Amino acid sequence: MLPDRAFFDRLADAAKAETLPRFRSGLDVVNKQAGGFDPVTEGDRAAEIAIRTLIEDRFPEHGILGEEQESIGLDREHVWVIDPIDGTRAFISGVPVWGTLIGFQTNGRSVMGMMDQPFTGERYFADGERSWYSGPDGERQIRTRDCRSLADAILFTTSPHLFVGSEMDNYMAIQDQVRLFRYGVDCYAYALLAAGHVDLVIETVLKPYDVGALIPLIEQAGGVITTWQGGRPESGGAIVAAGSRAVHQQALEFLGR
Amino acid sequence: MLPDRAFFDRLADAAKAETLPRFRSGLDVVNKQAGGFDPVTEGDRAAEIAIRTLIEDRFPEHGILGEEQESIGLDREHVWVIDPIDGTRAFISGVPVWGTLIGFQTNGRSVMGMMDQPFTGERYFADGERSWYSGPDGERQIRTRDCRSLADAILFTTSPHLFVGSEMDNYMAIQDQVRLFRYGVDCYAYALLAAGHVDLVIETVLKPYDVGALIPLIEQAGGVITTWQGGRPESGGAIVAAGSRAVHQQALEFLGR
Repeated sequence: MLPDRAFFDRLADAAKAETLPRFRSGLDVVNKQAGGFDPVTEGDRAAEIAIRTLIEDRFPEHGILGEEQESIGLDREHVWVIDPIDGTRAFISGVPVWGTLIGFQTNGRSVMGMMDQPFTGERYFADGERSWYSGPDGERQIRTRDCRSLADAILFTTSPHLFVGSEMDNYMAIQDQVRLFRYGVDCYAYALLAAGHVDLVIETVLKPYDVGALIPLIEQAGGVITTWQGGRPESGGAIVAAGSRAVHQQALEFLGR
Repeated sequence: MLPDRAFFDRLADAAKAETLPRFRSGLDVVNKQAGGFDPVTEGDRAAEIAIRTLIEDRFPEHGILGEEQESIGLDREHVWVIDPIDGTRAFISGVPVWGTLIGFQTNGRSVMGMMDQPFTGERYFADGERSWYSGPDGERQIRTRDCRSLADAILFTTSPHLFVGSEMDNYMAIQDQVRLFRYGVDCYAYALLAAGHVDLVIETVLKPYDVGALIPLIEQAGGVITTWQGGRPESGGAIVAAGSRAVHQQALEFLGR
């Protein structure tokens, strides 16, 4: 048996109960890795436990790949891919563009996914065929928009500081051409792309749990998401997502250099 | 007679009726100035008219400084300072960190102000003595937080690309020291600072209507907002806002060079 929307909602609600009360609470953060700044809150840990508990209870035969705890059963037919708080920097600085990411893979392919933003009340969901939005202004099916060229495109990336060496050159070649670019939106950027508000997201050093939930959201809304070389994005790394094939193709010409 | 909270709420509600239906609507944008990218939506124009109409009806003796239309009576005792959609780039790219800014000056000093984010339902208000938050999680008085040094500070700026020449060097000297920095949050950054979630906002090339509403919000929450030289911020330009005197002082040492 496969999961349905109601089960995804239960997972997101369980995560929300752990994350939202801690958002803007002034809680101290813990440095997960010395040297770099990679904060993780108690909410992150508690939300992953809440999600895992529900999955293990309902689908004990499924694998789970999470951010915080050890992965289990990654070779199983069905695997959940979870990032309880994607955008921890946004979270600790009070900006509601972080999200809870819940992805579902079958035989290594991301086929269902949810991105939940508890503060704004937005929930983006890919049901296996279509992508959906629900939020303060209602519920509706979402589609990417058909942007024809980079010159017309709105581009998002989390931070240009994440690109290194030739990645930076390749990225800048695109940034110099687009209509508008913007920094600092993490997973929220992919949701906006799926809903047809922006056209291009370019990022690097992503983990599988950063994209697992977002891949079906974009693909089932009519968009394209791949590595910078044009391959499947499930493993993360350097990722490009576009609302149209034209913009994706044009971006790949620079990114694949 | 001076304005009260209820009147500010009426202004923000009138603006919201023009802006929110156009947010994420796929509406085309107009380039306000050829060469640079300075989009302005119909919502911007309509919201300013809505606000001005209410002010002129209730307080015909007050002046008005707006973004879209000609200013009137700037030499009067009381002057309203309005930016119907601050953060037009955020607005057109679907990110709910833009805001409607409504400031009120007496004898050239900003003394009351409101920042409204209609999509998230957040409203920040300075009543002349204290600063207040209302939003999906309730209503409360807000205070800046007492960050002791740049090394502990969270820093926001809209985009590092706005700094030119020595401004960039001065800004980067600070960015290199802080605990965390983030781009792309426009007026929302000042609201988060007033509410004690972040510690420092540094920007340049601001107009008077970009800061008019935010000055009292920060000052009446216990924070400091000045030019990079430490002067009054009402005229805009290069602006620095901090939640604590210590962080403001440390930032000025670099910015005032």
